[in-house]
Amino acid sequence: MEAGEEDISAAAAAANLRNDAHQQQQQQQPPVTSSNITCFNNNSVINLHSLTHLTDYLPHLQTHVNPLDSIPFFHPISGFYLSPTDVIFRNILFDLSVSAGTSGSATHHLQRLDSYHRAGPRKHIYFDHSHVRAAIVTCGGLCPGMNTVIRELVVGLWDLYGVRHIFGIKSGYRGFYSASTDPVPLCPKMVHDLHKRGGTLLETSRGGFDLRLIVNAIENRGYNQVYIIGGDGTMRGAVKIFEEIKRRKLKIAVAGIPKTVDNDVGVIDRSFGFQTAVEMAQQAISAAHVEAESAVNGVGLVKLMGRSTGHIALHATLSSRDVDCCLIPEIEFYLEGKGGLFEFLESRLKQNGHAVLVVAEGAGQRLIPRSKEAAEGQAGKDESGNAVLLDIGGWLKSELKKWWGRDHPEEELFTVKYIDPTYTIRAVAANATDNLYCTLLAHAAMHGAMAGYTGFVCGPINGNYGYIPVEEVAGANNVVDTNDHKWAWVRSVNNQPDFRRT
Amino acid sequence: MEAGEEDISAAAAAANLRNDAHQQQQQQQPPVTSSNITCFNNNSVINLHSLTHLTDYLPHLQTHVNPLDSIPFFHPISGFYLSPTDVIFRNILFDLSVSAGTSGSATHHLQRLDSYHRAGPRKHIYFDHSHVRAAIVTCGGLCPGMNTVIRELVVGLWDLYGVRHIFGIKSGYRGFYSASTDPVPLCPKMVHDLHKRGGTLLETSRGGFDLRLIVNAIENRGYNQVYIIGGDGTMRGAVKIFEEIKRRKLKIAVAGIPKTVDNDVGVIDRSFGFQTAVEMAQQAISAAHVEAESAVNGVGLVKLMGRSTGHIALHATLSSRDVDCCLIPEIEFYLEGKGGLFEFLESRLKQNGHAVLVVAEGAGQRLIPRSKEAAEGQAGKDESGNAVLLDIGGWLKSELKKWWGRDHPEEELFTVKYIDPTYTIRAVAANATDNLYCTLLAHAAMHGAMAGYTGFVCGPINGNYGYIPVEEVAGANNVVDTNDHKWAWVRSVNNQPDFRRT
Amino acid sequence: MEAGEEDISAAAAAANLRNDAHQQQQQQQPPVTSSNITCFNNNSVINLHSLTHLTDYLPHLQTHVNPLDSIPFFHPISGFYLSPTDVIFRNILFDLSVSAGTSGSATHHLQRLDSYHRAGPRKHIYFDHSHVRAAIVTCGGLCPGMNTVIRELVVGLWDLYGVRHIFGIKSGYRGFYSASTDPVPLCPKMVHDLHKRGGTLLETSRGGFDLRLIVNAIENRGYNQVYIIGGDGTMRGAVKIFEEIKRRKLKIAVAGIPKTVDNDVGVIDRSFGFQTAVEMAQQAISAAHVEAESAVNGVGLVKLMGRSTGHIALHATLSSRDVDCCLIPEIEFYLEGKGGLFEFLESRLKQNGHAVLVVAEGAGQRLIPRSKEAAEGQAGKDESGNAVLLDIGGWLKSELKKWWGRDHPEEELFTVKYIDPTYTIRAVAANATDNLYCTLLAHAAMHGAMAGYTGFVCGPINGNYGYIPVEEVAGANNVVDTNDHKWAWVRSVNNQPDFRRT
Amino acid sequence: MEAGEEDISAAAAAANLRNDAHQQQQQQQPPVTSSNITCFNNNSVINLHSLTHLTDYLPHLQTHVNPLDSIPFFHPISGFYLSPTDVIFRNILFDLSVSAGTSGSATHHLQRLDSYHRAGPRKHIYFDHSHVRAAIVTCGGLCPGMNTVIRELVVGLWDLYGVRHIFGIKSGYRGFYSASTDPVPLCPKMVHDLHKRGGTLLETSRGGFDLRLIVNAIENRGYNQVYIIGGDGTMRGAVKIFEEIKRRKLKIAVAGIPKTVDNDVGVIDRSFGFQTAVEMAQQAISAAHVEAESAVNGVGLVKLMGRSTGHIALHATLSSRDVDCCLIPEIEFYLEGKGGLFEFLESRLKQNGHAVLVVAEGAGQRLIPRSKEAAEGQAGKDESGNAVLLDIGGWLKSELKKWWGRDHPEEELFTVKYIDPTYTIRAVAANATDNLYCTLLAHAAMHGAMAGYTGFVCGPINGNYGYIPVEEVAGANNVVDTNDHKWAWVRSVNNQPDFRRT
Repeated sequence: MEAGEEDISAAAAAANLRNDAHQQQQQQQPPVTSSNITCFNNNSVINLHSLTHLTDYLPHLQTHVNPLDSIPFFHPISGFYLSPTDVIFRNILFDLSVSAGTSGSATHHLQRLDSYHRAGPRKHIYFDHSHVRAAIVTCGGLCPGMNTVIRELVVGLWDLYGVRHIFGIKSGYRGFYSASTDPVPLCPKMVHDLHKRGGTLLETSRGGFDLRLIVNAIENRGYNQVYIIGGDGTMRGAVKIFEEIKRRKLKIAVAGIPKTVDNDVGVIDRSFGFQTAVEMAQQAISAAHVEAESAVNGVGLVKLMGRSTGHIALHATLSSRDVDCCLIPEIEFYLEGKGGLFEFLESRLKQNGHAVLVVAEGAGQRLIPRSKEAAEGQAGKDESGNAVLLDIGGWLKSELKKWWGRDHPEEELFTVKYIDPTYTIRAVAANATDNLYCTLLAHAAMHGAMAGYTGFVCGPINGNYGYIPVEEVAGANNVVDTNDHKWAWVRSVNNQPDFRRT
Repeated sequence: MEAGEEDISAAAAAANLRNDAHQQQQQQQPPVTSSNITCFNNNSVINLHSLTHLTDYLPHLQTHVNPLDSIPFFHPISGFYLSPTDVIFRNILFDLSVSAGTSGSATHHLQRLDSYHRAGPRKHIYFDHSHVRAAIVTCGGLCPGMNTVIRELVVGLWDLYGVRHIFGIKSGYRGFYSASTDPVPLCPKMVHDLHKRGGTLLETSRGGFDLRLIVNAIENRGYNQVYIIGGDGTMRGAVKIFEEIKRRKLKIAVAGIPKTVDNDVGVIDRSFGFQTAVEMAQQAISAAHVEAESAVNGVGLVKLMGRSTGHIALHATLSSRDVDCCLIPEIEFYLEGKGGLFEFLESRLKQNGHAVLVVAEGAGQRLIPRSKEAAEGQAGKDESGNAVLLDIGGWLKSELKKWWGRDHPEEELFTVKYIDPTYTIRAVAANATDNLYCTLLAHAAMHGAMAGYTGFVCGPINGNYGYIPVEEVAGANNVVDTNDHKWAWVRSVNNQPDFRRT
Repeated sequence: MEAGEEDISAAAAAANLRNDAHQQQQQQQPPVTSSNITCFNNNSVINLHSLTHLTDYLPHLQTHVNPLDSIPFFHPISGFYLSPTDVIFRNILFDLSVSAGTSGSATHHLQRLDSYHRAGPRKHIYFDHSHVRAAIVTCGGLCPGMNTVIRELVVGLWDLYGVRHIFGIKSGYRGFYSASTDPVPLCPKMVHDLHKRGGTLLETSRGGFDLRLIVNAIENRGYNQVYIIGGDGTMRGAVKIFEEIKRRKLKIAVAGIPKTVDNDVGVIDRSFGFQTAVEMAQQAISAAHVEAESAVNGVGLVKLMGRSTGHIALHATLSSRDVDCCLIPEIEFYLEGKGGLFEFLESRLKQNGHAVLVVAEGAGQRLIPRSKEAAEGQAGKDESGNAVLLDIGGWLKSELKKWWGRDHPEEELFTVKYIDPTYTIRAVAANATDNLYCTLLAHAAMHGAMAGYTGFVCGPINGNYGYIPVEEVAGANNVVDTNDHKWAWVRSVNNQPDFRRT
Repeated sequence: MEAGEEDISAAAAAANLRNDAHQQQQQQQPPVTSSNITCFNNNSVINLHSLTHLTDYLPHLQTHVNPLDSIPFFHPISGFYLSPTDVIFRNILFDLSVSAGTSGSATHHLQRLDSYHRAGPRKHIYFDHSHVRAAIVTCGGLCPGMNTVIRELVVGLWDLYGVRHIFGIKSGYRGFYSASTDPVPLCPKMVHDLHKRGGTLLETSRGGFDLRLIVNAIENRGYNQVYIIGGDGTMRGAVKIFEEIKRRKLKIAVAGIPKTVDNDVGVIDRSFGFQTAVEMAQQAISAAHVEAESAVNGVGLVKLMGRSTGHIALHATLSSRDVDCCLIPEIEFYLEGKGGLFEFLESRLKQNGHAVLVVAEGAGQRLIPRSKEAAEGQAGKDESGNAVLLDIGGWLKSELKKWWGRDHPEEELFTVKYIDPTYTIRAVAANATDNLYCTLLAHAAMHGAMAGYTGFVCGPINGNYGYIPVEEVAGANNVVDTNDHKWAWVRSVNNQPDFRRT
């Protein structure tokens, strides 16, 4: 019930819901879902982030009883199906002292009770299983768990909903229309062990987004459920596809599954593959630590993924405990002078004889001198539209050597061991935690599309799976809050400088 | 309404808080924290689970500025310190249709906005670092991450709060008073690599709880912060210790850190070590699967931890995808007849030639014939006061062989490969996710004790760390909700029977 | 002198070889190979363990040029093909002082220069690739690497020799004739990733050996190359199959690939999967160690594979270094009294507070009281004809508890954590070392069969791959030499008792 | 004939040995060992590579009974101690046809029966345990197992021989004389868990070899056993140290333990850490494979260690089976034209859509254009005296991209994912196989030094541990024999080109 947010009174909302329930009994239709609900006794308290439903622009769609009802060994019990009124709260941290002051500010703060539709199967669905033609596409870089998501979409659609026409689009967005790649029919047997393999069965690529060609292809090939697995660039494309489909008034559900090993997606708790990546990143840190402590004045330097955010670097640092300094894009750092990196390293080398640095790939971009072309902005974007990053790892290694040679002419021995484990990290299969997460994500996406929602992504919100408007996720960003406790904890664990010139 | 909760009006709460703030400025004391606050414009909406603070029974304690303020490289910024009014909401799933109906029910449901104090450092603390004598004890069975918790308590107290008297109590509760073991002085150097090792540095044992001897020892040895790492039995002991200390009006903070590889602790999101255990459990399932599929009519049978709950079995099943049937304590199952396990296995063996069963150790206890002594209740408890479980794995293996021999006299080949990976699972070091979790747990406990809270445990609530009254955790239980979606998903993944006789 | 060995003079041998070379040039036939050669200037020095060749009983077989000659990208160079005169020495340790004494003893000792045919491709082969019908069967228990051997046989025969009729026999020996299982046609695509999976694609079973039915089936189905992967029981069956085929004068090559995770095969350096098993066994030992040291008077007890030999226990003990005492079948041990296990444990527990025991499954069988039926020899053999072993692990655990209770009535705490990791160890995929080994084994077997050898097994002899008469391997045994240095090293590492009552 | 070998008749050798035995009984001295023995009935058959013994230049040294005799729980049995006449044969492959031809050539070939002294404890040793001062030094790059060797030297010397003065020399050769690092006294407790950690406890460095300063330091500090762990450059230094010590007639045993992750040491079967490195290398190959197959026209490129030899690349290729082409220093390859790399890649990409290349770091050095300075030979050596290699990985990546852009202007998508896992591979702890190997190596070195041998290294020869003159190892090299079967197997597995222009 909702595109856009609007305030209506709780009473009206309740009336709507009752009417919905009434209509549903009579017409076998589920409640209309696209409206914003604010309730709590005439006060605006709950703010529901509404989703687009196919009936928003195709009001006369037929519903069907969810085939889960008739699966052997499967007896949906009371409470099994979710309804559009089942929501999750998002902002759950609260400062009581602020809200208690005046009713005005209380109202303001109570609007922080943002909520999202819960993910899960619905009693009534908007697709006849024999008519479903589902397309799955993966875009952008690799991330642990992509194959699990593919597997679970295929197995779930096939086994739970009886769908028999599931197609893999190869090579990312361009695979929809490219003459050189045909869609691959997928079935459970083909994907049986896929969750145990890294990468993506469907191949992936950056770029290739051509809205008209893509939507034409979707329409011509008769796909009515499109599952798009990709990062923020991909999700911005998904918004456009979804909007074009809505404009053409096609009965096609578009579901996004946010994929970013960097964990830089907003709204959701974390992105799939992230925990696996942190686990793997520890191995590189461990190797850097061994190399550093086995050398005289040894510095281990590890570059980790994280274009605009330092989540992997931060988490790997916290869990490994072998890192002396963790540099992330959210913090401007500097090398020379009081409070700078060199001063800090100097003290650590004196103290321990070695040091380990972790740097996220997007950190320190402003420190690196740009070549003429780069400065002029040519070739500044890759095919996904992301800014091409300068190589902070290589640059830092070189600066460290210069510094040592300059400041320690008498001391012969100094070594920097530089490790870039990116591909080794992102190409592994998901660990148990991520594997389960990917399963739940795929199921959430599938149940949502079957229920007639479109233009949504799914993901965990405070530990529960919900549906989020795709444009909201495409626009959000999840950076490390360097003012909160976690980052302070990193600094307290490392005693690393805060790089705030005093 | 739970113990320790009472409704007061928001206005009164606000008044309290303002008074607190006022007092604080004058007396350098933090706000009184042990009260229940309900706010939101005269409506009872938020229900705070209050904690005991040392000032509740020792009202004239001095406060000190948190030494984090003066740590080199460490500049606490605005928002760094938490205050007693910072809370987390616990129940965040909501059905809008219910609340919208009448104002009466809305009130009722809004009381579901239970909240807990957030964990984190406080601006003012109640201990002078040079006077702190901290004791750390581990009780019960092993769990991945115990050593990380120990390490982080030691390093955190030492590095962040300048504590120099930290003692490890060996052999569990009995170590407080046992003549044969002395407390071990701990320092960061001793625990440097501890997070990379399984088990517990402090040795652990079951039982040995003697309230008087323990509290006497705590008092005599001058411990004023006691960190207790253990399961529900241990936490019931911690409640008694905390109450006795309060009765004696001692300035001793008691902090619990819930440890249970089974993930059966209530209130908190999950217990530490659980994700690691699930990861490891997959290896056993994988081996069982290989053994089963490499045999003719091969059945792989894996017994996993889970005395009263099936979380490990459930999660390992979901993430591994090689399991045909997952049996947990929350579901009564049966072997013979329509809808029973044998019928199901029969069909799977016919279909695939092999099958994999996972059984939680606490499942099916009512199916196993008890020996005479067991039936009479003798020797029915272990030293932690837990019921001694009958060996469901061994029994099931034997029943499976009987069944096959009886029902398939002509078919020669049938194999059950039984794997009990318990010790191999629980003795490993924590993975990255759990390692980080343990760090945050230890820090939360330390900050809480320093801030003068007592009788609390810490843990993640909807992804944020909070403080929970220890008696609440000791009494809660976290079972698998077999009526919710996750269990339904297990069944849908496996198509396994629901064992509901029709 | 062993079966199949005879002394002939070097001159005669050379004459034979020259004649062979002559014949070969004229008739395009390779040298006759089935003779024993002793050479070195009229002195008997080298003793070749001869193989049976198909031409021994089918003298008029056609030869073909090895298709490796015409594989794209593949240009066999000089020295690429081996000839029947290429041999490996087996006994390479020598005591110069003994041989130097008298010429008589020197002769005696020089007969120790046993040699075997080297494995590898031959220039001329005895099968037309389009006529080859190869059968592969796996028997007995699992072992890491079985799937790699299967994979490499399939891929090697297909890609290198152009064979297109390769069949997997399911369920072990009985699969040849069982009505319920059909042979599975195999091709490279099916086995592509097989080396990354544990177990055996072909399923395995014990027993089911029926000579007549098996050889009839081989003959009727037209298999002319039979690859048998199995342990000593299986190899004894292979000898019979080979002899029956020879008796029937069939052009069928029988090649054995010795499989025993216990490493108890004679003649060869070690069996495949052994190194992987040792690697995995360390994990169980590590868990036992963690459990033991985390308890008060904790004993970790690990039962490892090793029916008649303690190789796995020995190697895992040496490489893990966490073991206090390693008990193997080759050493009789005892519990009570001076120099016994209990006395030793007593001292270790006093010294370290914990201890770790490793016991091979075949150790201490004479210590365990046998039940009446067992004593009467009923049910004393499994289907492979191996003696059913009593459970040394369970028995030892129970005896340890009795001992402690009896001898330490006052000491409350004592724990035995018993781990049996058998299935977890043997079900994993082979590690890199074993994976490579399995590849070389499969290639060796394939080249040998193609070259017309039969009744042989292949394996590494002092690091080089050779062919060994199957009856020699079936009769040999490789026990731990408790008189040599390696076992002494174990004892020196552990300082464990030698259990020699003085 | 190699240095240190001379032909004497067997009779004379036997006489020597008898005389030795006679002397030994009278003077409590072991047999003189430094002579070449050729035996076998007046024919020159066995050629012993002799070692230097301290008595060669200090003839009047006292002997002592090996303290292993009196270790508790340790009862050396008959055959436990080795004597100087215990030897291993090295060349064990033989072509009977050649030797049989004429007695002349037979003699020639029988000289191939090179032999080495077996490693192991001697009944009589040349050091009083209370006078031993042992120094251990590690030089050059990291290699899995270094810490295990250190650990076992320390524990073995301490526990088996009762040595109490063991010193770790830090920072490689310069640590002997550097003013800034003191030797570290080592004891078993310090190294207890060292075998579970990668790197080297002693820190390592390249260069710093100053013969006079080093031998002066050894003499001044009173070390009488020097254990040197390092690669070929280090061993060339060890030769000089040993010779200078001999020149000064000092009672100091110099034992080398060859360390090279590349496995390029001659004479010995393989170097320690090699198997672990291959295991780890597979992970990088697996990641490259996943990246390649998840992209459109994806090429995975992995650079592996191997300066002058391709052993790691070769073994990892064979065991992983995901590699399309393996480039090693022993094979000159070329990019363009018929039979070149690009042509081959073209066909693989057309066939499979992706390809994986593995390149040893020392491969293709002649293909890469050298910068002016490099061409002039400046800065052409690192501190170990090794030629600085050009970056074949980076160059190949760049050439591949140029090629694709040039030859496939119309095809948009092509990706090269380049992985350099060097530090991640070499910094891990040794796996079980290598761990055991390192133990045996350390014991071999220790027994040899105690027995009075000097100027030797130890290592496995055809699976048995032997002593080899250090100058022999320093000068030998172990390259991949691209004419033998193993390399042919690689090519047959990959069907990769042989880069022999026709």
